[in-house]
Amino acid sequence: MSGRLYCVGVGPGDPELMTVKAVRILSEVDVIAYPHSDRGGAEAVAFRIAIAACREIENKERIPVHVPMTRDRAAVEESLRETAGRIRDALEDGRSVAYITLGDPMIYSTYFSLGRTLKEWGHETEYVPGVPSFCAASARLGIPLVAGNESLSILPAQGGIPKARENENLVLMKAGSKMKELKACDELMDREVAAVSNCGMEGEAAYYGVDAIPDDAGYFTTVIVRRR
Amino acid sequence: MSGRLYCVGVGPGDPELMTVKAVRILSEVDVIAYPHSDRGGAEAVAFRIAIAACREIENKERIPVHVPMTRDRAAVEESLRETAGRIRDALEDGRSVAYITLGDPMIYSTYFSLGRTLKEWGHETEYVPGVPSFCAASARLGIPLVAGNESLSILPAQGGIPKARENENLVLMKAGSKMKELKACDELMDREVAAVSNCGMEGEAAYYGVDAIPDDAGYFTTVIVRRR
Repeated sequence: MSGRLYCVGVGPGDPELMTVKAVRILSEVDVIAYPHSDRGGAEAVAFRIAIAACREIENKERIPVHVPMTRDRAAVEESLRETAGRIRDALEDGRSVAYITLGDPMIYSTYFSLGRTLKEWGHETEYVPGVPSFCAASARLGIPLVAGNESLSILPAQGGIPKARENENLVLMKAGSKMKELKACDELMDREVAAVSNCGMEGEAAYYGVDAIPDDAGYFTTVIVRRR
Repeated sequence: MSGRLYCVGVGPGDPELMTVKAVRILSEVDVIAYPHSDRGGAEAVAFRIAIAACREIENKERIPVHVPMTRDRAAVEESLRETAGRIRDALEDGRSVAYITLGDPMIYSTYFSLGRTLKEWGHETEYVPGVPSFCAASARLGIPLVAGNESLSILPAQGGIPKARENENLVLMKAGSKMKELKACDELMDREVAAVSNCGMEGEAAYYGVDAIPDDAGYFTTVIVRRR
């Protein structure tokens, strides 16, 4: 019988913010697959969180998933099929596999292409949701994301800031490298702005007010923008 | 010394989707405060989730927080101050208090006014983030919320559906009572639409395609709308 396949969100950084289910699944599976790049970043972080919450995974079989940092589509495709092949082999050997991902598996995750390929090959993924980074940032700042009749938009920072709708709050993800440009945006004028870098991780810092955020705030910076 | 005050997200419904930290805090505190209304709904649900994950709370002191179903602002304000007073008394007696809320404390939570009042009285809240319902709905459906350069907007269903921006996906919260109107919206044409009712709870049901969603899908229905 084929093994079970999971994609498990490990939450925003603090290992204690993993769900009870995530810890159980990681302790039960045979194989841990995890994103890994030469540049470190989000990839190494997901594994560090998981191992801190669930020591048993240290002794499990691992499949590091290399995410090539290139725009060469053929190279990306080849790498993807090679990794998917390794996961399929484990599953068809009857071993269960959990792919771990930072935050929640459905929000800007590295798993989508892999999951689609494995589905085409007959292996369905069970997704285990996690706490997204913006929820942890908001909790750290003590500033609500959305209340009453408001709406909330989550945006990748590299796209800039759109004109906000009425009663719309914004979350800008991975804003660090774009901070200087973001701070110059008219849309931030007269709004309540706050940010957290490295939330729940080493080097955590919180900033209240747009001028308080340093231009070099770092990759894992989440910015919250609210109507006053 | 004054006791500690927490607002703890218990996640979307499945008690196993509570975080390790949420379970620990609930087992440690002296008093559990929880939203409670005569109509049941979200209020009774948060307590049921918490007690399923953490049996000890059965024997703890409880402060049920009545949320009056009225537009009479004076009545709401009076009820709020009465509840805040009970929580303050416990804190000033040196007891720790955790207020529990469905999903994540920063997303459409019942705690904001209470937390603001307690802050004015000198009691800061520590927020413990939780898995939002839309993450669980997306995991259940196997449909990503947001990827690549897309953005995601979370909207209360009663406001209708705004014209979507380029690359924007939508989540409509608590859509059940508005389903008939929503299904008639032009913005849903030519989009990928799916929904979950009572995700992780009794009576869970998943629907793929706008026509599959029943008009009376129930209060706890989350709709996901994606560009194809």
